[in-house]
Amino acid sequence: MRPSGRSTDQLRDIKITRNFTRHAEGSVLVEFGDTKVICNASVESRVPGFLKGQGQGWVTAEYGMLPRSTGSRMMREAAKGKQSGRTVEISRLIGRSLRAAVDLEALGENSITIDCDVIQADGGTRTASITGACVAMMDAVNHMLKEGMIKKNPIKQMIAAVSVGIYNEHAVLDLDYPEDSNAETDLNVIMAEDGGFVEIQGTAEGEPFRPEELTAMLELAKKGISEIIAVQRQALDAQ
Amino acid sequence: MRPSGRSTDQLRDIKITRNFTRHAEGSVLVEFGDTKVICNASVESRVPGFLKGQGQGWVTAEYGMLPRSTGSRMMREAAKGKQSGRTVEISRLIGRSLRAAVDLEALGENSITIDCDVIQADGGTRTASITGACVAMMDAVNHMLKEGMIKKNPIKQMIAAVSVGIYNEHAVLDLDYPEDSNAETDLNVIMAEDGGFVEIQGTAEGEPFRPEELTAMLELAKKGISEIIAVQRQALDAQ
Amino acid sequence: MRPSGRSTDQLRDIKITRNFTRHAEGSVLVEFGDTKVICNASVESRVPGFLKGQGQGWVTAEYGMLPRSTGSRMMREAAKGKQSGRTVEISRLIGRSLRAAVDLEALGENSITIDCDVIQADGGTRTASITGACVAMMDAVNHMLKEGMIKKNPIKQMIAAVSVGIYNEHAVLDLDYPEDSNAETDLNVIMAEDGGFVEIQGTAEGEPFRPEELTAMLELAKKGISEIIAVQRQALDAQ
Amino acid sequence: MRPSGRSTDQLRDIKITRNFTRHAEGSVLVEFGDTKVICNASVESRVPGFLKGQGQGWVTAEYGMLPRSTGSRMMREAAKGKQSGRTVEISRLIGRSLRAAVDLEALGENSITIDCDVIQADGGTRTASITGACVAMMDAVNHMLKEGMIKKNPIKQMIAAVSVGIYNEHAVLDLDYPEDSNAETDLNVIMAEDGGFVEIQGTAEGEPFRPEELTAMLELAKKGISEIIAVQRQALDAQ
Amino acid sequence: MRPSGRSTDQLRDIKITRNFTRHAEGSVLVEFGDTKVICNASVESRVPGFLKGQGQGWVTAEYGMLPRSTGSRMMREAAKGKQSGRTVEISRLIGRSLRAAVDLEALGENSITIDCDVIQADGGTRTASITGACVAMMDAVNHMLKEGMIKKNPIKQMIAAVSVGIYNEHAVLDLDYPEDSNAETDLNVIMAEDGGFVEIQGTAEGEPFRPEELTAMLELAKKGISEIIAVQRQALDAQ
Amino acid sequence: MRPSGRSTDQLRDIKITRNFTRHAEGSVLVEFGDTKVICNASVESRVPGFLKGQGQGWVTAEYGMLPRSTGSRMMREAAKGKQSGRTVEISRLIGRSLRAAVDLEALGENSITIDCDVIQADGGTRTASITGACVAMMDAVNHMLKEGMIKKNPIKQMIAAVSVGIYNEHAVLDLDYPEDSNAETDLNVIMAEDGGFVEIQGTAEGEPFRPEELTAMLELAKKGISEIIAVQRQALDAQ
Repeated sequence: MRPSGRSTDQLRDIKITRNFTRHAEGSVLVEFGDTKVICNASVESRVPGFLKGQGQGWVTAEYGMLPRSTGSRMMREAAKGKQSGRTVEISRLIGRSLRAAVDLEALGENSITIDCDVIQADGGTRTASITGACVAMMDAVNHMLKEGMIKKNPIKQMIAAVSVGIYNEHAVLDLDYPEDSNAETDLNVIMAEDGGFVEIQGTAEGEPFRPEELTAMLELAKKGISEIIAVQRQALDAQ
Repeated sequence: MRPSGRSTDQLRDIKITRNFTRHAEGSVLVEFGDTKVICNASVESRVPGFLKGQGQGWVTAEYGMLPRSTGSRMMREAAKGKQSGRTVEISRLIGRSLRAAVDLEALGENSITIDCDVIQADGGTRTASITGACVAMMDAVNHMLKEGMIKKNPIKQMIAAVSVGIYNEHAVLDLDYPEDSNAETDLNVIMAEDGGFVEIQGTAEGEPFRPEELTAMLELAKKGISEIIAVQRQALDAQ
Repeated sequence: MRPSGRSTDQLRDIKITRNFTRHAEGSVLVEFGDTKVICNASVESRVPGFLKGQGQGWVTAEYGMLPRSTGSRMMREAAKGKQSGRTVEISRLIGRSLRAAVDLEALGENSITIDCDVIQADGGTRTASITGACVAMMDAVNHMLKEGMIKKNPIKQMIAAVSVGIYNEHAVLDLDYPEDSNAETDLNVIMAEDGGFVEIQGTAEGEPFRPEELTAMLELAKKGISEIIAVQRQALDAQ
Repeated sequence: MRPSGRSTDQLRDIKITRNFTRHAEGSVLVEFGDTKVICNASVESRVPGFLKGQGQGWVTAEYGMLPRSTGSRMMREAAKGKQSGRTVEISRLIGRSLRAAVDLEALGENSITIDCDVIQADGGTRTASITGACVAMMDAVNHMLKEGMIKKNPIKQMIAAVSVGIYNEHAVLDLDYPEDSNAETDLNVIMAEDGGFVEIQGTAEGEPFRPEELTAMLELAKKGISEIIAVQRQALDAQ
Repeated sequence: MRPSGRSTDQLRDIKITRNFTRHAEGSVLVEFGDTKVICNASVESRVPGFLKGQGQGWVTAEYGMLPRSTGSRMMREAAKGKQSGRTVEISRLIGRSLRAAVDLEALGENSITIDCDVIQADGGTRTASITGACVAMMDAVNHMLKEGMIKKNPIKQMIAAVSVGIYNEHAVLDLDYPEDSNAETDLNVIMAEDGGFVEIQGTAEGEPFRPEELTAMLELAKKGISEIIAVQRQALDAQ
Repeated sequence: MRPSGRSTDQLRDIKITRNFTRHAEGSVLVEFGDTKVICNASVESRVPGFLKGQGQGWVTAEYGMLPRSTGSRMMREAAKGKQSGRTVEISRLIGRSLRAAVDLEALGENSITIDCDVIQADGGTRTASITGACVAMMDAVNHMLKEGMIKKNPIKQMIAAVSVGIYNEHAVLDLDYPEDSNAETDLNVIMAEDGGFVEIQGTAEGEPFRPEELTAMLELAKKGISEIIAVQRQALDAQ
C-alpha cells in the first residue's frame, strides 16, 4: 500500500555517521532513507544576553535547506534576506526539543548551537534533524567533559523523533515525501528514551482526525522511536 | 489550586463581540478572561499567485501583539523590521486551522485574510485568536453570500481552540498567564464541531509528559471546546 | 455643507476612556467620531543610549494602524518588514509634540514610550493620537509619582491636536475621512493649553492656500483645541 | 546678533548652477551659503503602478546626505539598509511640494524623479533642496518639450522654500546650522510665485510659539522667498 | 617548507564525486584536500527579466558556507538576513567565470543556477567551487541535451580554478588554510582548457608583490590547472 | 581607433581638487575625464570591535553612486534597503587597497573611513575612487599629525589605480564607458609608488585572454600609474 513497499510500521533505513565534518565539536550525518541532514554542534563558553549571570547554559538550533535539496530549486534564504516561516518554526522546534534533554544548570554558562542543514530532502527533515542533532549534542557534551568545561554530563536522557500519519486511511510510520504530500494527517512525535513525550504536533491536512487515529499514530511512533534510539545508541557506542 | 480559583475543568469567562470595528467584512472582539484579541476578516476577490487559475480560494491569517499588550513593553515588530519566530509560527497555525474549516473550492477565486491583533494578553492568545477568527470568518462568508460573490456556504464546520496543560501535576483547562508560565506541559488543541482534531501541539516545558497525561488533557480540551463552540453559536445567532 | 451635517466649527463627538487595557502605566482609548486609537504609555527607568548620564529623561512615540482599520486592508507593516514613510513621519510628530509638554530634566533618567495604535480610522488619526497620548502620558506620570520614581510632576502643560482644512472653499474644523480625502488644504495644529503653538503642519493638496485662509484655519483650531482640552481635563478628573 | 553677522531678514548667498552633471535631464547645484545640494531630475516615460492608465503623470523626490556632508560622519544609509525617519520625511516633503507646482494631467503618463543629494550641510538642506529641485524640474520639463514627450508646459508656477525661526527671541530668515541648532522655533515655508502657501511646517523646539511670532516669521519667509525666486528666474534665463 | 609537507608546485588531493545528491540536474561534491563543497546545478526553462525575449540563456551562481564549515561557528547568513560582502563577491566571481565557458545563445532561453555550498573549509573554497561547478554544469547541460531542451552543447570549453600565492617568500600552488592565513600574496586564477585566462584576482596582503612574483605564480597556476582539468575530465568520463 | 580619439597609452585628463567639502578631514574631488568622484576621509579615534585593544588602527572605505550619476537612473540603494553586489565588491576593494598603503600599527587605535561617492560616471569609477581616496587619506593623516593624534606618518607609500583592457584587439589604457562596455577584457590594476602590485583584477568579458595580452596590459598600467602618481604628488604639493 505504501509507495515504497514498506509495511505500515516500518521505518526507512536509518544511518547515523559521526564525525562527518572536521571542525564542529559534534558532527553527524543523519539519513532517514533519502532524507540527509548534516547536524553540526558548536560549543561556546558563553550564553545569550538574557541568561547572563544566571548560572545556567543554553541549547539552541538553526535549520536550513540547501536550495536544491528539493525537487525544484528553492530561493536561497540568505540571498532573499529572510527565512521562511517554515524554517523559523522548525528551528524553534529543534531547539526546544533538545533543551528538554538537557539539565541546563549542569551545562554551566556554556552554549551549544546545533545547525541542521538538509542536503537532500525526502520527507521528515525536521524529525531526522532532531534525531541527528541529539547525537551531535552528545558528542559536543563529551568534548566539553574531556576539555574540563563541565564536570558532569548534563544530558538527562536521549531524545529522538519520527513522523507518523494517516495515509490512504491507514496509520503509517516515518512518511517519505510521496506519502507526506498526500497524507490526510501528519503528526510529528518527539519522545524521550523513557517513553515520555517531549513534543507532539499533529495537523489535519484535509479532514479532522479522530481520537482513535491519534491513538494508532502514537502507538506507531512509540515503536519507531524505540528503534531509532537503538540506532542512536549503536552509533554512539561505535567509536 | 489554580491561582484564579477556577476548578481544573473550568474555562475563563468567554465573550465574543461581533461588528467590533466598522470596515472589516467580519470583525470580532474575543475575550478569554483578560486575554482580548481583535479578529478582523477581510475579503478580496483574488487569490495569491500560486493559486491563480486553479478555481479555488484561500484563507490566511496574520497575528500580532500590540507592544504593550503584555506586562512589559515588547519592541514593535514593524519598527524592528522583523516578526519574531513566535509571531510567524502562530500566524501559520491560525491560517492552517481556519483552512481546515473551509471548502476552498466552494470559496471560488476569493481570499479571506484574518488579522488577529492582541490588545491585552493573559495567556492563550493563539487559541483565543482561532476561536474569534472562526466567527469573523463566518461573518465574512455571510457578507460574500449576500454580495453574491459565492453561491453556497463554503464553511464545512465550526472550529474552536483551547489550551490545556499540566499545572501543579494536575491537568487543567484554559491556562491563564500565571499558570502558563509555570506549567509543566502546555497543549494547544484545535477541534472541529464534530469532535475531530484539526491540530494539536503539545510541549513539555520541563519533564516529558506521560501518555496518561496526554489522555487527561485531551479529555479536558474536548469538554472545553464544546462549551466554546456554544458561545460561538450563541454570538452568531445573536444578531 | 459638510457630509456629516456638522457646522464648520463643530468637532466630532470626542470620548476619552482611561484604563482601557490593563498592563500599561497609562492606557487610553480616544475617539474622534469613528476614529478610534488605543494610546498606551509605558514607563521604563532608563534612557536611550544617546542620553545616558545626562540627568534627563525621554519621551517617544510609535504609531501604527491595524491592517483593517481602513476601508480596504493595508499590508501589515511587521510582515512587510518596513514601516511606511507616513507611519514614520507620524511617529516622529507625536513624540516631538509630547516632548514639548514635558520638562525632560524633571523626568529624571526615565523614559515614557507612547504606542498609538489605530483600531478604526475615519480621518484625523494623528491628531486624535496626540490628544489621547497626552492623557495616557499624564496617567503614566501619576504612576511614576505614586511609585516614587520622580518627586515632582514634569508635565509643563496639557497639549492637544486637531486638524483643520479648506473644504469646499470653507475653513472647517476636525475633518473626517470624506472631507479629508477631498480637502483643498489640510492643516494639523498641535497647541498647548496656554494657546501657544507646539507644531503646525499645513499642506496644499491642490492650489496653494492664501494667508487669509491660514488665519481662518488657525482661528478654528484654537476654538477646537480649547474644547478638546476640556474633554481631556474632564477625563482626568473623572476617576 | 546672528553668528554670521547677517541682519534678521538677510538670506545667505544663494547660487544656482545648472547642468551641473551630464546625464540627468535637469541637473542643478544649489548653494545656500555653505549648504550645497545636487538636484538631479530624471525623466521616464512611464508612471508608478498605482497611476497606470489614468492619463496623468507623477513627480517624486528622494533625499540623501553624503555620509560626511556633516560635522561628524553619519553611517551610510545604504550600508545600514535603512533610511532614517528624517530622510523619509524630507523626501516626502520635497515630492509633495513639487507636485503642487505641476499640472499632473498635462504631464501625460510620464514621471519626473528628483534626487536631492546633500554634499555639504550647514542648515536648511530641505529648503535648499526644494529650491534647487524646482529649477532642475524646469530643465527636465524643457527637455520633455524639446523631445516632443509633452505638448504644453505642465508647470503651473515656480515654487521656492526657506526656513525661518525664532533665534534669541527674534524672528530670523534662512537659519544656518549654528542658528538652527539653537533656535527656539523652526518653521519651513514653501511658497508659490503668486504668494500662496504650498506647505508650512513649524516646530517649537522649546517653548510653544505665539501667534504673533508666527506672523513675524511668515512675513520674513515671504520676503525671502521672493528674493529666492528671483535667483531661480535669473538662473533659468541665463542659458 | 609548507605546513602540509607538499612541494611548492604540488596540489592537494583533488576528488570530484558526481551525482552527489539526487534532485539537482548536476550534483558534484568537490574536494581539494579538506575543503569540501557541494555544487548543485539547477536547470530552468526561463531567463531573468532583463534577458526576456533576447533569445539567449543565463548562467548564475550562489555561494554559501555552512555555519560550522569553519574553525569557529559563523552566524548563519539567512538568520542574519544579510549576506556578507565576501559571500556576494564570491557568488559573482563564480557566475562570471562559468558564463565565460558557455555560449549563452546556444543555451536558448534557459537558465542554469549553480549553488556552491561549502560543508568543510580549509582554504581555496572559491576556486574549488568553480572547479566543481563546471563539472556540475556539464552534467546539467547533458541533462538538457537528453531532454531535448537544447540541440547542441553550449559549453565552449572546460574551466578550472586554483589559488596560488607567495608564502614564506616562495610561490606555492593551491594554498590550504594555514598557508592562506599567512600568505604575503594570494592570487586566484581561473583558466580555460586552452590556457587562456578567464579571471585573475591577486591581492597583496602585506607588501606589494613584484612583477616577477606574478610571473612565478602564474606559471604554477598553469601547471596546477592542467592537472585539475585532467581530474575533471576523468570524473566526466567515469560514468 | 578609440572613441575618444586618444592613443592606446593615453590617460584621460586627470584632475584632483583638495578641500572640496568643508567638514571631512580629507576631501578630494577626483576627475578622470567625465568620471567624477567625491572622496571624503573621516578620522575617528577608535577602532572597530574586532581590533579593540590590539594597538593598531583601521582603514576602510565605502563606495556609492548617486542615482543619476549614470545614463539612466539607478534605484537609490538606501531606499531599496540593500547595496548591490557590485557596490559591496568595490567598497571592499578600495578599503583593501588603501590598507596596503598604511602601517596600521603606526596609525594607533584610530580609524580612517573613506567615502567615495560617484557624482558622474564615465567608466573607471573604482580606479578613480582609489586614486582620489589615497590623496584624501594623505590629508586625513596630515590632520592627525597636526592634531597630535599620531607621532609619525603611517603612510608607507602612495598608491594609485587605473583600468586597462583589450578593446578592438588592442591593449588600451584608462577605459571610458564606451570602451568599457565593449571591451573584450577589463583589468583593474592598483600599484604602489615603488612599482609593486597592490591588487590586480582581470576579467575576460568574452573570450579568455592570453598571457601576452596580460603582459601588454600590465605594461600600459605601469606607465599610466606613474603619470597618475605624478598628478597626486602635484596636488599634494600644491597647498
